Amino acid sequence: MTSVQFTSKLSLEEFLQLPDTKPASEYIDGQIYQKTMPQGKHSILQTRLVTSINQVGEPQQLAYGLTELRCTFGGRSLVPDIAVFEWSRIPVDEDGEISNRVEIAPDWLIEILSPEQSPNSVINKIIFSIKHGTQLGWFIDPNDKSVMFFQPNQLPEVKYNADILPVLTVLENWQVSAADVFSLLKFK
Amino acid sequence: MTSVQFTSKLSLEEFLQLPDTKPASEYIDGQIYQKTMPQGKHSILQTRLVTSINQVGEPQQLAYGLTELRCTFGGRSLVPDIAVFEWSRIPVDEDGEISNRVEIAPDWLIEILSPEQSPNSVINKIIFSIKHGTQLGWFIDPNDKSVMFFQPNQLPEVKYNADILPVLTVLENWQVSAADVFSLLKFK
Repeated sequence: MTSVQFTSKLSLEEFLQLPDTKPASEYIDGQIYQKTMPQGKHSILQTRLVTSINQVGEPQQLAYGLTELRCTFGGRSLVPDIAVFEWSRIPVDEDGEISNRVEIAPDWLIEILSPEQSPNSVINKIIFSIKHGTQLGWFIDPNDKSVMFFQPNQLPEVKYNADILPVLTVLENWQVSAADVFSLLKFK
Repeated sequence: MTSVQFTSKLSLEEFLQLPDTKPASEYIDGQIYQKTMPQGKHSILQTRLVTSINQVGEPQQLAYGLTELRCTFGGRSLVPDIAVFEWSRIPVDEDGEISNRVEIAPDWLIEILSPEQSPNSVINKIIFSIKHGTQLGWFIDPNDKSVMFFQPNQLPEVKYNADILPVLTVLENWQVSAADVFSLLKFK
C-alpha cells in the first residue's frame, strides 16, 4: 500500500467525503493508503471466486459476496478484495437495495496477495476485521498456492492442495479445497 | 522457497543424511525446500537482532539466540532465521557444547521475509513450531516496517512504530519496539 501523506491527520468523516480513487483508498489509524493496482492473477481469482461463492450462496439466499465494497467500522474504512455477508446481514436501504454506505464488518473477508504488497499490511486488515465481528478471513498467496485462514481467538492455519478450506457456516455444504481455488487461475 | 523435486519421497532420516546446502534446505511433509539466498536487509536484521537478543540474554544466562540452526521436530526439519532458546533449554552434548543435532522446537522463532519469499510458506513454519512448543514467533516484514507476532491459541497481531513487541518471558525486562527493530537497518 502507498501511504498518501497529508500535513494534518484527516478524520474518518473527512476521509469519507473525499472523492474515491481507483484503486480504492483505505483509512487506517488516521492515515490514507491506496490499494495496489490489481494484476492478472489477482483479478481472475477475485472475479471467479466471488462468482463461485454467489453460485452457492444466492439461490438459497444463504450469503452474498461483493468485490471492492467499502466497509467502514471500528474507526477504519477498508475495501476488502471480497466481502461476503450472510443473507440476513446484507446491508440494504429502505428500498431493499444494497446500501451505499456499509458500516458493518463482513462475515467473511477474502484478501488476495499481489506481488508488490506487504503481507503484514494485508493480514493486519484481516485481524482487525476478525476483532470487529468477521467470522472468517482468507489470505490467498497465489505464488505459494496456499490459503491461510483466520478465525476468532485462534492461530491461523495454512492450507495446500487437497486440504478443504473453511467457509461460512451457512455455506457448510460447499466443499472447496485449496486446489479448487487455484484451479480458477487456469483457462481450459 | 524452491521445491527440489525427487522421483520418490525421502524419509526424514534420509534427508538428514544428505550433505547440507547453502542456503540451507528444509524438510516439510516429505518435500525438500531450499531457503532463499538472503539479501542485504535480511542479513543485517538477522545479524543485529540476534546480537541484541544475546546482549540481553547471555550475561544473566536467560536465553540465547542462534542463526540458521537446523531444528528437527514433529517430523519436519526447519532452519529458522533466528532460533532463541531459554538458557536451560539450549541443546548441549555431554561436554556442555552446543549439540550438532537439535531435536526440539526453539522457544522463540524469528523469520524475516525476503522480497521473493511467499509469506504463507514462512508463516506456516511459525505456526507449525508454535503447535510444537514454541512460545513466541516473530514474522518481520521489512517492506511494511512491521512485526507480526504469534503465540499459542490466539490470533497474531501486527505491530508498527513505537508499539512494544512481546519477547520471551525470561527477557521481559527488555523493551523493544517495532521501530527499534527497523532502526537496526540503518548505519549511523
